[in-house]
Amino acid sequence: MSQVGKFIVIEGLEGAGKSSAIALVNDLIQQHVGQAPVCTREPGGTPLAEKMRDLVKIADETDPLCDEAECLLIYAARSQLIANVIKPALAKGQWVLGDRHNLSSLAYQGGGRGLMPLVKAVSDACLGGFTPDFTLYLDIDPKLGLTRAANRGELDRIEQQAIEFFERARQTYLQLAAQDDSIVVIDASQPIDKVHQDIRTQLQQRLPMLHHKA
Amino acid sequence: MSQVGKFIVIEGLEGAGKSSAIALVNDLIQQHVGQAPVCTREPGGTPLAEKMRDLVKIADETDPLCDEAECLLIYAARSQLIANVIKPALAKGQWVLGDRHNLSSLAYQGGGRGLMPLVKAVSDACLGGFTPDFTLYLDIDPKLGLTRAANRGELDRIEQQAIEFFERARQTYLQLAAQDDSIVVIDASQPIDKVHQDIRTQLQQRLPMLHHKA
Repeated sequence: MSQVGKFIVIEGLEGAGKSSAIALVNDLIQQHVGQAPVCTREPGGTPLAEKMRDLVKIADETDPLCDEAECLLIYAARSQLIANVIKPALAKGQWVLGDRHNLSSLAYQGGGRGLMPLVKAVSDACLGGFTPDFTLYLDIDPKLGLTRAANRGELDRIEQQAIEFFERARQTYLQLAAQDDSIVVIDASQPIDKVHQDIRTQLQQRLPMLHHKA
Repeated sequence: MSQVGKFIVIEGLEGAGKSSAIALVNDLIQQHVGQAPVCTREPGGTPLAEKMRDLVKIADETDPLCDEAECLLIYAARSQLIANVIKPALAKGQWVLGDRHNLSSLAYQGGGRGLMPLVKAVSDACLGGFTPDFTLYLDIDPKLGLTRAANRGELDRIEQQAIEFFERARQTYLQLAAQDDSIVVIDASQPIDKVHQDIRTQLQQRLPMLHHKA
């Protein structure tokens, strides 16, 4: 099969239900193309990128991670993942299913942290126009999402941010989705059966289109 | 003392003699301002930035560090060092003596790796105009410098690059120094006594000027 693979990404705030959505989309891709996709997570997804993730997640009171370093570490990890995992897989015709990608940085570091000029400068200079073929954004009110996430266990350094941080990230997600046909918003506050039904409907429309796009 | 501190940086290729120059400049600053400067090294210089340095230095054959990730890790470390060490020290009136700073990224990642657009985008967006008060660039032919460095012991991942990489880095150093009065070029191929005499002459001229600049 000479056709290049496709890159599909699941995005959303903490507690939006990304994990179960990823399991579902993984199955739908497998049914559609006859092969399981390569699954990635960001930040991380290569041995070195996972070490960069660790530096983003840990909270060091004596040397608190500054916002710029957080942003640059995440892009370092993304560059590494694209170069060593995503692009090689796509070139071999494999599909790739991503747990977060560049839209997370635009929402969290750009919108949440107020670093949009840095995020856009790095994104433009670093990714060279590389972008997912299709993104599902699971939209949820952060108050509901964080309650769900807290019930799962301890919150990491980023999950401990004030609610306003996540409100700004959500608004950025919604604004960017409104401007980009390749991003579909799913209402993740619905019962899980309805969320999954919406995801299935979207994928059933999109997968054949992606599959036949050169 | 209400006067803000000054930031002085020593730059140069491997084997240019940065370590002994730093020891000398450290003494000259101490004699001049009556207090030892805060010494930093890049990439690194804070607990988290040193972990980022480790990721830049190690060679992982199964997950080779891509050039963009190398560049972004170095800027993540620099952001962290500026935020948590350099700016706080300067604000307290302390002088800071840096073993490398932004000029290294322009030379190595910009010139050496050919990533100047990424380096300039990140540098502009991230540093917000923050720049050393004075930089000593120790200029050496990389053939000579790398022979010296190899005699010291094993070369790290970056020191193992082809000679052309260092030639490009050197040309970038020289071009940038020619455009910037705050960068002084020292001929580091001379005998060490003459190199140190040149450094002393430069510092004796510059330190009083810096000291009395608002």
